[in-house]
Amino acid sequence: MGHNISNKRPIIKYINEELIHFEDEIVTEFPITIHVNGVEFATMVCTPTHIDELIIGFLASEGVILFKDEITNLNINVSRGFAYVTLNKKIPTNQQHFSKRFIGSCCGKSRQFYFQNDVRTAKTSMVKTTIQPEQCINLMNMMQENSHVFKNTGGVHNAALCNASEIIVDRTDIGRHNALDKLYGYSMINKIPVRDKIIVFSGRISSEVLLKASKIGVGIVLSKSAPTDLAIQLADDLNITTVGFIRGKSFNVYTHPERITNQPDSIHERGKST
Amino acid sequence: MGHNISNKRPIIKYINEELIHFEDEIVTEFPITIHVNGVEFATMVCTPTHIDELIIGFLASEGVILFKDEITNLNINVSRGFAYVTLNKKIPTNQQHFSKRFIGSCCGKSRQFYFQNDVRTAKTSMVKTTIQPEQCINLMNMMQENSHVFKNTGGVHNAALCNASEIIVDRTDIGRHNALDKLYGYSMINKIPVRDKIIVFSGRISSEVLLKASKIGVGIVLSKSAPTDLAIQLADDLNITTVGFIRGKSFNVYTHPERITNQPDSIHERGKST
Repeated sequence: MGHNISNKRPIIKYINEELIHFEDEIVTEFPITIHVNGVEFATMVCTPTHIDELIIGFLASEGVILFKDEITNLNINVSRGFAYVTLNKKIPTNQQHFSKRFIGSCCGKSRQFYFQNDVRTAKTSMVKTTIQPEQCINLMNMMQENSHVFKNTGGVHNAALCNASEIIVDRTDIGRHNALDKLYGYSMINKIPVRDKIIVFSGRISSEVLLKASKIGVGIVLSKSAPTDLAIQLADDLNITTVGFIRGKSFNVYTHPERITNQPDSIHERGKST
Repeated sequence: MGHNISNKRPIIKYINEELIHFEDEIVTEFPITIHVNGVEFATMVCTPTHIDELIIGFLASEGVILFKDEITNLNINVSRGFAYVTLNKKIPTNQQHFSKRFIGSCCGKSRQFYFQNDVRTAKTSMVKTTIQPEQCINLMNMMQENSHVFKNTGGVHNAALCNASEIIVDRTDIGRHNALDKLYGYSMINKIPVRDKIIVFSGRISSEVLLKASKIGVGIVLSKSAPTDLAIQLADDLNITTVGFIRGKSFNVYTHPERITNQPDSIHERGKST
Protein backbone atom coordinates (compact mmCIF):
# COMPACT_ATOMS: atom_id res chain seq x y z
CA MET A 1 0.00 0.00 0.00
CA GLY A 2 3.00 2.27 -0.38
CA HIS A 3 3.89 2.78 3.28
CA ASN A 4 6.52 0.90 5.22
CA ILE A 5 6.07 -0.01 8.85
CA SER A 6 9.57 1.28 9.54
CA ASN A 7 12.35 3.09 7.69
CA LYS A 8 16.06 3.55 8.06
CA ARG A 9 17.32 6.97 9.02
CA PRO A 10 20.70 8.53 9.86
CA ILE A 11 21.14 9.28 13.55
CA ILE A 12 23.96 10.19 15.91
CA LYS A 13 24.90 7.50 18.40
CA TYR A 14 26.69 8.06 21.69
CA ILE A 15 28.75 4.98 22.43
CA ASN A 16 32.14 4.45 24.09
CA GLU A 17 32.04 8.13 25.09
CA GLU A 18 31.91 9.29 21.48
CA LEU A 19 29.21 10.77 19.26
CA ILE A 20 29.29 8.96 15.92
CA HIS A 21 27.16 8.84 12.77
CA PHE A 22 24.99 5.78 12.58
CA GLU A 23 21.86 4.41 10.94
CA ASP A 24 18.75 3.34 12.83
CA GLU A 25 15.41 1.76 12.03
CA ILE A 26 12.54 4.13 12.88
CA VAL A 27 8.99 2.89 13.36
CA THR A 28 6.29 4.53 11.25
CA GLU A 29 3.48 6.44 12.93
CA PHE A 30 0.84 6.97 10.29
CA PRO A 31 -2.07 9.40 10.76
CA ILE A 32 -5.35 8.44 9.17
CA THR A 33 -8.47 10.59 9.16
CA ILE A 34 -11.78 8.78 8.78
CA HIS A 35 -14.77 10.41 7.13
CA VAL A 36 -18.12 8.69 7.60
CA ASN A 37 -20.95 9.60 5.22
CA GLY A 38 -19.00 12.68 4.18
CA VAL A 39 -18.39 13.97 7.72
CA GLU A 40 -14.99 13.95 9.45
CA PHE A 41 -15.35 11.38 12.21
CA ALA A 42 -11.94 10.72 13.79
CA THR A 43 -8.19 10.89 13.28
CA MET A 44 -5.96 8.18 14.64
CA VAL A 45 -2.30 7.31 14.32
CA CYS A 46 -1.40 3.74 13.51
CA THR A 47 1.01 1.32 11.97
CA PRO A 48 -0.02 1.34 8.29
CA THR A 49 -0.91 -2.32 7.89
CA HIS A 50 -4.41 -3.79 7.56
CA ILE A 51 -5.93 -0.32 7.54
CA ASP A 52 -9.26 -1.71 6.31
CA GLU A 53 -9.48 -3.99 9.36
CA LEU A 54 -8.51 -1.11 11.62
CA ILE A 55 -11.25 1.17 10.30
CA ILE A 56 -13.96 -1.49 10.35
CA GLY A 57 -12.96 -2.64 13.85
CA PHE A 58 -12.79 0.93 15.11
CA LEU A 59 -16.25 1.81 13.75
CA ALA A 60 -17.67 -1.38 15.30
CA SER A 61 -16.12 -0.72 18.69
CA GLU A 62 -17.42 2.86 18.60
CA GLY A 63 -20.90 1.45 17.99
CA VAL A 64 -21.19 3.03 14.53
CA ILE A 65 -21.68 -0.31 12.79
CA LEU A 66 -22.88 -3.71 13.95
CA PHE A 67 -22.01 -5.66 10.80
CA LYS A 68 -19.45 -5.17 8.09
CA ASP A 69 -22.23 -5.15 5.46
CA GLU A 70 -23.47 -1.80 6.78
CA ILE A 71 -20.45 -0.32 5.01
CA THR A 72 -21.39 0.11 1.36
CA ASN A 73 -18.12 1.74 0.37
CA LEU A 74 -14.67 2.01 1.95
CA ASN A 75 -12.12 4.07 0.06
CA ILE A 76 -8.67 4.39 1.61
CA ASN A 77 -6.27 7.00 0.26
CA VAL A 78 -3.04 5.79 1.81
CA SER A 79 -0.79 8.44 0.30
CA ARG A 80 -2.82 11.25 1.86
CA GLY A 81 -3.87 9.35 4.99
CA PHE A 82 -7.62 9.63 4.51
CA ALA A 83 -10.37 7.03 4.54
CA TYR A 84 -13.90 7.59 3.28
CA VAL A 85 -16.62 5.33 4.61
CA THR A 86 -20.16 5.23 3.27
CA LEU A 87 -22.81 3.48 5.36
CA ASN A 88 -26.22 2.18 4.26
CA LYS A 89 -27.64 4.21 7.15
CA LYS A 90 -27.09 7.38 9.11
CA ILE A 91 -24.42 7.53 11.81
CA PRO A 92 -26.59 5.93 14.47
CA THR A 93 -25.87 8.05 17.48
CA ASN A 94 -25.98 11.43 18.99
CA GLN A 95 -22.31 12.40 18.93
CA GLN A 96 -22.72 14.15 22.24
CA HIS A 97 -23.36 10.83 23.92
CA PHE A 98 -19.89 9.68 22.92
CA SER A 99 -18.27 12.13 25.26
CA LYS A 100 -20.58 11.86 28.24
CA ARG A 101 -19.37 9.93 31.18
CA PHE A 102 -21.89 7.42 32.27
CA ILE A 103 -22.18 6.11 35.80
CA GLY A 104 -25.05 3.83 36.38
CA SER A 105 -26.08 0.41 37.48
CA CYS A 106 -27.61 -2.39 35.50
CA CYS A 107 -28.08 -6.14 35.79
CA GLY A 108 -28.26 -5.64 39.52
CA LYS A 109 -24.58 -4.79 39.77
CA SER A 110 -22.82 -1.50 40.02
CA ARG A 111 -21.16 -0.63 36.75
CA GLN A 112 -19.06 2.24 35.79
CA PHE A 113 -18.27 3.05 32.21
CA TYR A 114 -16.60 6.19 31.02
CA PHE A 115 -18.85 6.65 28.08
CA GLN A 116 -22.48 5.89 27.49
CA ASN A 117 -21.42 4.37 24.20
CA ASP A 118 -19.61 1.60 26.04
CA VAL A 119 -22.81 0.60 27.79
CA ARG A 120 -24.40 -0.12 24.42
CA THR A 121 -21.48 -2.01 22.92
CA ALA A 122 -19.81 -3.91 25.78
CA LYS A 123 -21.04 -7.49 25.97
CA THR A 124 -21.35 -9.69 29.05
CA SER A 125 -19.70 -12.97 28.21
CA MET A 126 -21.93 -16.03 28.49
CA VAL A 127 -19.49 -18.59 27.13
CA LYS A 128 -18.29 -21.66 28.97
CA THR A 129 -15.12 -21.99 26.89
CA THR A 130 -12.20 -23.16 28.98
CA ILE A 131 -8.46 -23.20 28.45
CA GLN A 132 -5.75 -25.25 30.12
CA PRO A 133 -2.91 -23.48 31.95
CA GLU A 134 -0.28 -24.83 29.55
CA GLN A 135 -2.30 -23.51 26.61
CA CYS A 136 -2.23 -19.99 28.09
CA ILE A 137 1.55 -20.16 28.16
CA ASN A 138 1.77 -21.67 24.68
CA LEU A 139 -0.45 -19.01 23.08
CA MET A 140 1.64 -16.20 24.59
CA ASN A 141 4.86 -17.83 23.37
CA MET A 142 3.44 -18.33 19.87
CA MET A 143 2.36 -14.71 19.60
CA GLN A 144 5.73 -13.43 20.75
CA GLU A 145 7.59 -15.67 18.31
CA ASN A 146 5.49 -14.30 15.44
CA SER A 147 6.22 -10.65 16.27
CA HIS A 148 9.87 -10.42 15.26
CA VAL A 149 9.33 -7.65 12.71
CA PHE A 150 9.62 -4.76 15.10
CA LYS A 151 12.43 -6.08 17.23
CA ASN A 152 14.79 -3.32 16.10
CA THR A 153 12.40 -0.43 16.48
CA GLY A 154 11.31 -0.70 20.10
CA GLY A 155 8.06 -1.84 21.62
CA VAL A 156 4.86 -2.20 19.67
CA HIS A 157 1.67 -3.86 20.77
CA ASN A 158 0.76 -7.34 19.62
CA ALA A 159 -2.68 -8.85 19.82
CA ALA A 160 -3.94 -12.22 18.65
CA LEU A 161 -7.34 -13.84 18.28
CA CYS A 162 -7.02 -17.50 19.21
CA ASN A 163 -8.77 -20.68 20.13
CA ALA A 164 -7.32 -22.69 22.99
CA SER A 165 -4.71 -24.42 20.86
CA GLU A 166 -3.73 -21.99 18.11
CA ILE A 167 -3.58 -18.43 16.81
CA ILE A 168 -6.23 -17.57 14.23
CA VAL A 169 -4.83 -14.12 13.41
CA ASP A 170 -2.33 -11.77 15.01
CA ARG A 171 -1.84 -8.08 14.45
CA THR A 172 0.71 -5.47 15.47
CA ASP A 173 0.37 -1.73 15.93
CA ILE A 174 2.07 1.15 17.71
CA GLY A 175 -1.36 1.91 19.19
CA ARG A 176 -2.56 -0.60 21.78
CA HIS A 177 -6.21 -0.20 20.84
CA ASN A 178 -5.44 -0.33 17.14
CA ALA A 179 -4.03 -3.86 17.40
CA LEU A 180 -7.32 -4.93 18.99
CA ASP A 181 -9.42 -3.02 16.46
CA LYS A 182 -7.57 -4.84 13.67
CA LEU A 183 -8.57 -8.18 15.22
CA TYR A 184 -12.16 -6.95 15.47
CA GLY A 185 -12.13 -5.84 11.83
CA TYR A 186 -10.58 -9.13 10.71
CA SER A 187 -13.23 -11.18 12.49
CA MET A 188 -16.02 -9.05 10.98
CA ILE A 189 -14.63 -9.18 7.44
CA ASN A 190 -14.11 -12.93 7.65
CA LYS A 191 -17.30 -13.59 9.62
CA ILE A 192 -15.43 -15.47 12.36
CA PRO A 193 -17.48 -16.29 15.47
CA VAL A 194 -15.64 -14.64 18.34
CA ARG A 195 -17.59 -15.45 21.50
CA ASP A 196 -15.75 -18.73 22.12
CA LYS A 197 -12.36 -17.22 21.22
CA ILE A 198 -9.49 -15.88 23.30
CA ILE A 199 -7.57 -12.61 22.98
CA VAL A 200 -3.85 -12.63 23.71
CA PHE A 201 -2.33 -9.18 24.24
CA SER A 202 1.21 -7.98 24.84
CA GLY A 203 0.39 -4.94 26.95
CA ARG A 204 -1.32 -3.94 30.15
CA ILE A 205 -5.03 -4.77 30.52
CA SER A 206 -6.36 -1.26 31.10
CA SER A 207 -10.08 -0.60 31.32
CA GLU A 208 -10.02 0.47 27.68
CA VAL A 209 -8.36 -2.77 26.58
CA LEU A 210 -10.85 -4.77 28.62
CA LEU A 211 -13.76 -2.88 27.07
CA LYS A 212 -12.37 -3.47 23.57
CA ALA A 213 -12.16 -7.21 24.29
CA SER A 214 -15.68 -7.11 25.63
CA LYS A 215 -16.95 -5.33 22.53
CA ILE A 216 -15.23 -7.88 20.30
CA GLY A 217 -17.11 -10.41 22.42
CA VAL A 218 -14.50 -12.81 23.82
CA GLY A 219 -14.66 -14.38 27.27
CA ILE A 220 -10.93 -14.78 27.97
CA VAL A 221 -8.12 -12.18 27.83
CA LEU A 222 -4.50 -13.25 28.29
CA SER A 223 -1.76 -10.67 28.82
CA LYS A 224 1.98 -10.55 29.37
CA SER A 225 1.45 -7.56 31.65
CA ALA A 226 -0.85 -6.63 34.55
CA PRO A 227 -4.47 -5.46 34.66
CA THR A 228 -5.58 -2.27 36.42
CA ASP A 229 -8.14 -2.28 39.23
CA LEU A 230 -10.79 -0.74 36.98
CA ALA A 231 -10.21 -3.38 34.30
CA ILE A 232 -10.62 -6.05 36.98
CA GLN A 233 -13.92 -4.51 38.14
CA LEU A 234 -15.22 -4.43 34.57
CA ALA A 235 -14.02 -7.98 33.86
CA ASP A 236 -15.65 -9.26 37.06
CA ASP A 237 -18.88 -7.67 36.02
CA LEU A 238 -18.80 -8.54 32.31
CA ASN A 239 -17.94 -12.15 33.15
CA ILE A 240 -14.57 -12.06 31.40
CA THR A 241 -11.59 -14.15 32.53
CA THR A 242 -8.43 -12.04 32.81
CA VAL A 243 -4.99 -13.61 33.02
CA GLY A 244 -1.84 -11.51 33.40
CA PHE A 245 1.92 -11.72 33.84
CA ILE A 246 2.22 -14.76 31.58
CA ARG A 247 5.99 -15.13 31.80
CA GLY A 248 8.01 -18.32 31.68
CA LYS A 249 5.92 -21.08 33.20
CA SER A 250 3.70 -18.99 35.47
CA PHE A 251 0.85 -16.47 35.33
CA ASN A 252 -1.84 -14.82 37.45
CA VAL A 253 -5.60 -15.22 37.11
CA TYR A 254 -7.43 -12.07 38.21
CA THR A 255 -11.07 -12.73 37.38
CA HIS A 256 -13.36 -15.69 36.61
CA PRO A 257 -10.77 -18.46 37.13
CA GLU A 258 -13.42 -21.10 36.33
CA ARG A 259 -12.38 -20.91 32.66
CA ILE A 260 -8.77 -21.88 33.45
CA THR A 261 -8.83 -25.60 34.09
CA ASN A 262 -7.18 -28.85 33.22
CA GLN A 263 -10.54 -30.54 33.25
CA PRO A 264 -12.58 -29.16 30.37
CA ASP A 265 -15.66 -31.13 31.43
CA SER A 266 -15.95 -29.82 34.98
CA ILE A 267 -16.82 -26.20 34.43
CA HIS A 268 -17.74 -24.37 37.60
CA GLU A 269 -21.12 -22.74 37.64
CA ARG A 270 -19.70 -19.69 39.46
CA GLY A 271 -19.60 -16.60 37.32
CA LYS A 272 -22.51 -17.71 35.18
CA SER A 273 -24.52 -14.71 34.04
CA THR A 274 -28.25 -14.69 33.46
CA MET B 1 -6.79 12.37 49.08
CA GLY B 2 -8.40 9.05 49.93
CA HIS B 3 -7.26 7.02 46.94
CA ASN B 4 -4.30 4.68 46.80
CA ILE B 5 -2.15 4.31 43.72
CA SER B 6 -2.35 0.55 44.13
CA ASN B 7 -4.15 -2.00 46.30
CA LYS B 8 -3.70 -5.61 47.30
CA ARG B 9 -6.17 -8.14 45.95
CA PRO B 10 -6.55 -11.92 46.08
CA ILE B 11 -5.70 -13.66 42.83
CA ILE B 12 -5.03 -17.19 41.63
CA LYS B 13 -1.46 -17.89 40.63
CA TYR B 14 -0.31 -20.66 38.30
CA ILE B 15 3.16 -21.73 39.38
CA ASN B 16 4.94 -25.10 39.40
CA GLU B 17 2.01 -26.48 37.41
CA GLU B 18 -0.47 -25.67 40.18
CA LEU B 19 -3.21 -23.08 40.61
CA ILE B 20 -2.87 -21.57 44.08
CA HIS B 21 -4.41 -18.69 46.01
CA PHE B 22 -2.15 -15.67 46.22
CA GLU B 23 -2.19 -11.94 46.82
CA ASP B 24 -1.10 -9.35 44.26
CA GLU B 25 -0.65 -5.60 44.11
CA ILE B 26 -3.02 -4.03 41.54
CA VAL B 27 -2.40 -0.59 40.09
CA THR B 28 -5.23 1.91 40.40
CA GLU B 29 -6.85 3.33 37.26
CA PHE B 30 -8.86 6.32 38.37
CA PRO B 31 -11.44 7.98 36.11
CA ILE B 32 -11.86 11.73 36.49
CA THR B 33 -14.40 13.82 34.64
CA ILE B 34 -13.58 17.50 34.21
CA HIS B 35 -16.29 20.15 34.00
CA VAL B 36 -15.21 23.58 32.78
CA ASN B 37 -17.53 26.52 33.46
CA GLY B 38 -20.33 24.07 34.22
CA VAL B 39 -19.96 22.06 31.02
CA GLU B 40 -18.60 18.50 30.83
CA PHE B 41 -15.28 18.85 29.06
CA ALA B 42 -13.40 15.54 29.21
CA THR B 43 -13.02 12.27 31.08
CA MET B 44 -9.62 10.73 31.56
CA VAL B 45 -8.23 7.81 33.53
CA CYS B 46 -5.17 8.43 35.64
CA THR B 47 -3.11 7.50 38.65
CA PRO B 48 -4.79 9.51 41.44
CA THR B 49 -1.80 11.63 42.52
CA HIS B 50 -1.31 15.34 41.86
CA ILE B 51 -4.76 15.58 40.27
CA ASP B 52 -4.64 19.38 40.43
CA GLU B 53 -1.44 19.43 38.35
CA LEU B 54 -2.95 16.95 35.92
CA ILE B 55 -6.05 19.06 35.34
CA ILE B 56 -4.17 22.34 35.01
CA GLY B 57 -1.58 20.80 32.68
CA PHE B 58 -4.26 19.10 30.60
CA LEU B 59 -6.25 22.32 30.16
CA ALA B 60 -3.07 24.18 29.19
CA SER B 61 -2.03 21.57 26.65
CA GLU B 62 -5.53 21.61 25.17
CA GLY B 63 -5.19 25.37 24.74
CA VAL B 64 -8.02 26.14 27.18
CA ILE B 65 -5.80 28.19 29.50
CA LEU B 66 -2.52 30.02 29.01
CA PHE B 67 -1.84 30.79 32.66
CA LYS B 68 -2.83 29.14 35.89
CA ASP B 69 -4.42 32.41 37.07
CA GLU B 70 -7.16 32.06 34.46
CA ILE B 71 -8.58 29.37 36.75
CA THR B 72 -10.58 31.16 39.45
CA ASN B 73 -11.79 27.98 41.10
CA LEU B 74 -10.75 24.32 41.02
CA ASN B 75 -12.83 21.92 43.05
CA ILE B 76 -11.83 18.26 42.96
CA ASN B 77 -14.25 15.66 44.31
CA VAL B 78 -11.92 12.69 44.59
CA SER B 79 -14.45 10.27 46.02
CA ARG B 80 -16.78 10.70 43.02
CA GLY B 81 -14.02 11.33 40.44
CA PHE B 82 -15.20 14.75 39.30
CA ALA B 83 -13.39 18.07 38.98
CA TYR B 84 -15.10 21.42 38.52
CA VAL B 85 -13.07 24.22 36.95
CA THR B 86 -14.19 27.83 36.75
CA LEU B 87 -12.33 30.15 34.40
CA ASN B 88 -12.27 33.97 34.40
CA LYS B 89 -13.24 33.72 30.73
CA LYS B 90 -15.24 31.61 28.32
CA ILE B 91 -13.78 28.37 26.96
CA PRO B 92 -11.71 30.05 24.27
CA THR B 93 -12.33 27.84 21.31
CA ASN B 94 -14.84 26.38 18.98
CA GLN B 95 -14.96 22.78 20.18
CA GLN B 96 -15.33 21.61 16.63
CA HIS B 97 -11.81 22.79 15.89
CA PHE B 98 -10.47 20.34 18.45
CA SER B 99 -11.40 17.39 16.35
CA LYS B 100 -10.47 18.65 12.90
CA ARG B 101 -7.33 17.32 11.38
CA PHE B 102 -5.14 20.08 10.13
CA ILE B 103 -2.66 19.70 7.33
CA GLY B 104 -0.99 22.88 6.34
CA SER B 105 2.30 24.60 5.95
CA CYS B 106 3.73 27.47 7.89
CA CYS B 107 7.13 29.02 8.54
CA GLY B 108 8.07 27.89 5.03
CA LYS B 109 8.12 24.26 6.08
CA SER B 110 5.64 21.54 5.60
CA ARG B 111 3.93 20.73 8.86
CA GLN B 112 1.40 18.18 9.72
CA PHE B 113 -0.55 18.24 12.93
CA TYR B 114 -3.47 16.07 13.72
CA PHE B 115 -5.49 18.83 15.25
CA GLN B 116 -5.78 22.49 14.56
CA ASN B 117 -5.48 23.02 18.28
CA ASP B 118 -1.92 21.76 18.20
CA VAL B 119 -0.96 24.43 15.70
CA ARG B 120 -1.94 27.09 18.22
CA THR B 121 -0.27 25.56 21.23
CA ALA B 122 2.89 23.83 19.96
CA LYS B 123 5.94 26.04 20.36
CA THR B 124 9.05 26.12 18.20
CA SER B 125 12.00 25.95 20.57
CA MET B 126 14.41 28.87 20.35
CA VAL B 127 16.66 27.91 23.25
CA LYS B 128 20.39 27.29 23.02
CA THR B 129 20.48 25.16 26.17
CA THR B 130 22.94 22.30 25.84
CA ILE B 131 23.50 19.12 27.78
CA GLN B 132 26.52 16.86 28.00
CA PRO B 133 26.21 13.18 27.00
CA GLU B 134 27.01 11.98 30.53
CA GLN B 135 24.27 14.24 31.90
CA CYS B 136 21.69 12.58 29.61
CA ILE B 137 22.62 9.22 31.09
CA ASN B 138 22.65 10.54 34.65
CA LEU B 139 19.20 12.14 34.39
CA MET B 140 17.68 8.90 33.06
CA ASN B 141 19.29 6.91 35.87
CA MET B 142 18.11 9.39 38.50
CA MET B 143 14.52 9.26 37.25
CA GLN B 144 14.47 5.48 37.20
CA GLU B 145 15.90 5.26 40.71
CA ASN B 146 13.14 7.54 41.98
CA SER B 147 10.33 5.45 40.49
CA HIS B 148 10.45 2.40 42.71
CA VAL B 149 6.86 2.73 43.92
CA PHE B 150 5.27 0.83 41.08
CA LYS B 151 7.83 -1.91 40.72
CA ASN B 152 5.38 -4.59 41.82
CA THR B 153 2.45 -3.49 39.70
CA GLY B 154 3.90 -3.49 36.19
CA GLY B 155 4.90 -0.65 33.91
CA VAL B 156 3.82 2.91 34.48
CA HIS B 157 5.11 6.00 32.76
CA ASN B 158 7.61 8.28 34.42
CA ALA B 159 8.36 11.82 33.35
CA ALA B 160 10.68 14.38 34.88
CA LEU B 161 11.33 18.08 34.34
CA CYS B 162 15.05 18.70 34.73
CA ASN B 163 17.91 21.02 34.16
CA ALA B 164 21.14 19.54 32.83
CA SER B 165 22.36 18.39 36.23
CA GLU B 166 19.28 17.54 38.28
CA ILE B 167 15.60 16.62 38.44
CA ILE B 168 13.29 19.49 39.40
CA VAL B 169 10.16 17.36 39.63
CA ASP B 170 9.18 13.88 38.52
CA ARG B 171 5.73 12.39 38.12
CA THR B 172 4.30 8.95 37.48
CA ASP B 173 1.06 7.89 35.84
CA ILE B 174 -0.51 4.90 34.12
CA GLY B 175 -1.28 7.31 31.25
CA ARG B 176 1.75 8.42 29.25
CA HIS B 177 0.30 11.85 28.53
CA ASN B 178 -0.88 12.31 32.09
CA ALA B 179 2.67 12.11 33.45
CA LEU B 180 3.62 14.96 31.09
CA ASP B 181 0.50 16.96 31.91
CA LYS B 182 1.39 16.71 35.60
CA LEU B 183 4.80 18.24 34.85
CA TYR B 184 3.10 21.00 32.85
CA GLY B 185 0.68 21.68 35.71
CA TYR B 186 3.49 21.69 38.27
CA SER B 187 5.50 24.20 36.26
CA MET B 188 2.46 26.48 35.86
CA ILE B 189 1.45 26.29 39.53
CA ASN B 190 5.01 26.99 40.66
CA LYS B 191 5.75 29.48 37.88
CA ILE B 192 8.89 27.62 36.78
CA PRO B 193 10.43 28.82 33.51
CA VAL B 194 10.44 25.78 31.24
CA ARG B 195 12.02 26.87 27.96
CA ASP B 196 15.56 26.07 29.11
CA LYS B 197 14.52 22.82 30.79
CA ILE B 198 14.70 19.19 29.72
CA ILE B 199 12.03 16.49 29.79
CA VAL B 200 13.04 12.93 30.63
CA PHE B 201 10.47 10.30 29.74
CA SER B 202 10.31 6.55 30.24
CA GLY B 203 8.24 5.68 27.20
CA ARG B 204 8.26 5.94 23.45
CA ILE B 205 8.45 9.43 21.91
CA SER B 206 5.26 9.31 19.84
CA SER B 207 4.01 12.37 17.99
CA GLU B 208 1.65 13.05 20.89
CA VAL B 209 4.46 12.93 23.44
CA LEU B 210 6.56 15.22 21.27
CA LEU B 211 3.67 17.68 20.93
CA LYS B 212 3.10 17.65 24.69
CA ALA B 213 6.78 18.47 25.25
CA SER B 214 6.54 21.22 22.66
CA LYS B 215 3.46 22.69 24.34
CA ILE B 216 5.21 22.62 27.71
CA GLY B 217 7.95 24.51 25.87
CA VAL B 218 11.16 22.53 26.38
CA GLY B 219 13.91 22.17 23.79
CA ILE B 220 15.27 18.74 24.76
CA VAL B 221 13.42 15.41 25.22
CA LEU B 222 15.28 12.37 26.56
CA SER B 223 13.72 8.90 26.42
CA LYS B 224 14.57 5.35 27.36
CA SER B 225 12.66 4.20 24.29
CA ALA B 226 12.54 5.11 20.59
CA PRO B 227 10.81 7.94 18.73
CA THR B 228 8.42 7.38 15.82
CA ASP B 229 9.03 8.84 12.37
CA LEU B 230 6.23 11.37 12.84
CA ALA B 231 7.66 12.52 16.17
CA ILE B 232 11.04 12.98 14.45
CA GLN B 233 9.46 15.08 11.70
CA LEU B 234 7.73 17.27 14.27
CA ALA B 235 10.88 17.58 16.40
CA ASP B 236 12.96 18.51 13.35
CA ASP B 237 10.47 21.18 12.51
CA LEU B 238 9.81 22.50 16.04
CA ASN B 239 13.56 22.65 16.72
CA ILE B 240 13.46 20.12 19.54
CA THR B 241 16.36 17.79 20.33
CA THR B 242 15.21 14.17 20.72
CA VAL B 243 17.38 11.54 22.36
CA GLY B 244 16.25 7.92 22.63
CA PHE B 245 17.35 4.47 23.80
CA ILE B 246 19.24 5.84 26.79
CA ARG B 247 20.41 2.51 28.18
CA GLY B 248 23.62 1.76 30.03
CA LYS B 249 26.28 4.11 28.69
CA SER B 250 24.86 4.75 25.23
CA PHE B 251 21.99 6.53 23.49
CA ASN B 252 20.80 7.78 20.10
CA VAL B 253 20.30 11.40 19.02
CA TYR B 254 17.55 11.68 16.42
CA THR B 255 17.11 15.42 15.90
CA HIS B 256 19.00 18.66 16.55
CA PRO B 257 22.19 17.10 17.92
CA GLU B 258 23.72 20.57 18.36
CA ARG B 259 22.33 20.65 21.91
CA ILE B 260 24.21 17.48 22.92
CA THR B 261 27.79 18.54 23.44
CA ASN B 262 30.72 18.35 25.81
CA GLN B 263 31.61 21.93 24.97
CA PRO B 264 28.85 24.16 26.27
CA ASP B 265 30.48 27.25 24.75
CA SER B 266 30.64 26.07 21.15
CA ILE B 267 26.99 25.87 20.22
CA HIS B 268 26.41 25.23 16.55
CA GLU B 269 24.33 27.77 14.74
CA ARG B 270 22.54 25.02 12.83
CA GLY B 271 18.96 24.62 13.87
CA LYS B 272 18.58 28.24 14.91
CA SER B 273 15.07 29.40 14.27
CA THR B 274 14.07 32.92 13.30
